[in-house]
Amino acid sequence: MGIPDDSVGVVETKEFTFAAPPHELSLESGGRLGPITLAYETYGQLNSDKSNAILVLHALSGDAHAAGFHDGDKSPGWWDDMIGPGKAFDTGKYFVVSSNVIGGCMGSTGPSSPNPKTGKPYGSDFPIISIKDMVDAQRHLLDHLGIRRLLSVAGGSMGGMQVLQWMVSYPESIRSAIPISTALKHTPQQIAFNEVGRQAIMADPNWREGNFYDHSPPAKGLAVARMVGHITYMSEMSMAEKFGRRLKETKRPVKFSPEFEGEGYLENRGENFVKRFDANSYLYITKAMDNFDAVGARTPSDVFKGLKAKVLVIAFKSDWLYPAHQSQEIVKACKWAGVDATYCEVHSTYGHDAFLLEAEEETRLVKHFLTSTLNHHDDASERATSHEIRLPGHR
Amino acid sequence: MGIPDDSVGVVETKEFTFAAPPHELSLESGGRLGPITLAYETYGQLNSDKSNAILVLHALSGDAHAAGFHDGDKSPGWWDDMIGPGKAFDTGKYFVVSSNVIGGCMGSTGPSSPNPKTGKPYGSDFPIISIKDMVDAQRHLLDHLGIRRLLSVAGGSMGGMQVLQWMVSYPESIRSAIPISTALKHTPQQIAFNEVGRQAIMADPNWREGNFYDHSPPAKGLAVARMVGHITYMSEMSMAEKFGRRLKETKRPVKFSPEFEGEGYLENRGENFVKRFDANSYLYITKAMDNFDAVGARTPSDVFKGLKAKVLVIAFKSDWLYPAHQSQEIVKACKWAGVDATYCEVHSTYGHDAFLLEAEEETRLVKHFLTSTLNHHDDASERATSHEIRLPGHR
Repeated sequence: MGIPDDSVGVVETKEFTFAAPPHELSLESGGRLGPITLAYETYGQLNSDKSNAILVLHALSGDAHAAGFHDGDKSPGWWDDMIGPGKAFDTGKYFVVSSNVIGGCMGSTGPSSPNPKTGKPYGSDFPIISIKDMVDAQRHLLDHLGIRRLLSVAGGSMGGMQVLQWMVSYPESIRSAIPISTALKHTPQQIAFNEVGRQAIMADPNWREGNFYDHSPPAKGLAVARMVGHITYMSEMSMAEKFGRRLKETKRPVKFSPEFEGEGYLENRGENFVKRFDANSYLYITKAMDNFDAVGARTPSDVFKGLKAKVLVIAFKSDWLYPAHQSQEIVKACKWAGVDATYCEVHSTYGHDAFLLEAEEETRLVKHFLTSTLNHHDDASERATSHEIRLPGHR
Repeated sequence: MGIPDDSVGVVETKEFTFAAPPHELSLESGGRLGPITLAYETYGQLNSDKSNAILVLHALSGDAHAAGFHDGDKSPGWWDDMIGPGKAFDTGKYFVVSSNVIGGCMGSTGPSSPNPKTGKPYGSDFPIISIKDMVDAQRHLLDHLGIRRLLSVAGGSMGGMQVLQWMVSYPESIRSAIPISTALKHTPQQIAFNEVGRQAIMADPNWREGNFYDHSPPAKGLAVARMVGHITYMSEMSMAEKFGRRLKETKRPVKFSPEFEGEGYLENRGENFVKRFDANSYLYITKAMDNFDAVGARTPSDVFKGLKAKVLVIAFKSDWLYPAHQSQEIVKACKWAGVDATYCEVHSTYGHDAFLLEAEEETRLVKHFLTSTLNHHDDASERATSHEIRLPGHR
């Protein structure tokens, strides 16, 4: 296999375990979770003063494998177009950390992990987790890596929610932030799409109230949930460009088997997803997204008050799942708080998927932004030496 | 119960049965269907020269009960705001016929009807039906009622598709047409939303390949399908106005029970739908919509060639399921063919549901349009006496 010159090359997913009882992580829901394992990857080298670290955060179904190739794989990580030598997140300059979320099923602790109390998978005994809990766990990972302050934190969709949570929870831990295709909180419509997915999973008799690990998983329900998701990730135009109304050749005898190519594509995507994703993780993570509210009980002008980080907000024109006006609200909240925020609305026909696909446009924006963050007069670094950085769990 | 003065009053659904073997209706798919029963209602009086008849056609989950009250019911028919004395379809002037579609489960022949060959419900042996087949059956109903030519034919969503099919199949049978919130054909996105609903039904083990009538119906799958539908019928704004992010009081123990009001609403709507709708009808009717293509093999400029009817096309601004540009394509096809077509894009925040809810705006548009149709110099009526009207099944 020829690995391209601008790839970070062959990489491995690493694990970090912490919060072993009785030092469990306190969750936003009031529960506790531990021990916690986080799957993560790193690309590039951390410099001597540990000032070149960037944290990238994935969306609903993503994982720690953001760039490079796992040994023997033909496809690179999910943001490989953005991370590598000379790319937007230039691994010749920066040390990039990609962290999987808790609640997932890609190596980090989630509902399919063993419950230390029973030795069996948590299933529905897994506690409700939040975007804040995901970020608190990431703060522990950075402590483990010796990184007190990030040059930047970046991510799209749910990754963008985590970026916003970093801005709220750990303002002094970040010199800049790049929330992409995301929102301060979900609208009822966004919640409703997720709710349909959850109902489809829970309607599958194989779900068994979440305790299905000794049996067949609720594959059909999860496939339907993924299909709903895929429709919302694409635009009307990107679907039309991809499929038109071409009839699909089918030899299947079932009367209502997919006839149009788009239908078969959705069905295949649903089936593939089932092989790699846990249905309970889908429930827990979508619920974390739906419960997310960066504003909370504060007034909108107070949300980012005191934040010294520079912020680059990116939205895409054809994204109807996270429409541009939601990104504009993030910018507004930044401006109200006197935060140095830039807004870029990028033309694209890819819909919500654009944040993964429009690497060329994103590269131009991100590259320049990171350079200007580096050059930015940074009085906060002095603050960070004179004041103690807020620690997770002490807020 | 006090029936309002502008109501058509207490009404009954009637039945018309035709196409008894060996005279079955020839279907677009090549199959044959018979006998066929159509459920229908009528409001107002047919005048002596039978020139005041208007056919109204329902959407996916609708039925023949468009106006007035069934004996003892508290809720009127689905388009009661539009049909009655002094209303848009003024029953003081016009004779309104509302016909249920074949393939449905509201009194007309569909997959839950007995198959004459077996005496048991058709189930998956029901033939694939099309919008054209629905309209051909309606032409038989009008023959039965002695109506050769309609003053108008009107309907929204799938009802609008039937209107377009009337314009294509029976141009000389209509003096005007009102397609609302509809499209010449579905985009891949529209097909995909229906496909998710079908997959949800077929994923339910109770579906049993469509032959579930001796068992419990696939209620959970159908409920999920309906939930997907409801999201697409509302706008982002109408959902936000209706629900905001209010937390719903819930006493249910299940962890992933709906927390937000929008979720509970969707779940309730899904569950209510299951009580009144047949899952197989949902499959057959959505497939008929997805297969619909008013243009077909013709060039777009030929679709409505020779049509003498006046056409009023109505779209609603917040309708993202059938966006306005699809209505504009109908208008364009009319203009290309030299048809007298008017386009009205109505402001509304109700999304696709607007065609059922924006009765005041629709009334203004429709009332005037029907009057001008009546006053329109009508050389086609002479043609209709000198040429034979095209009969169904002879095209």
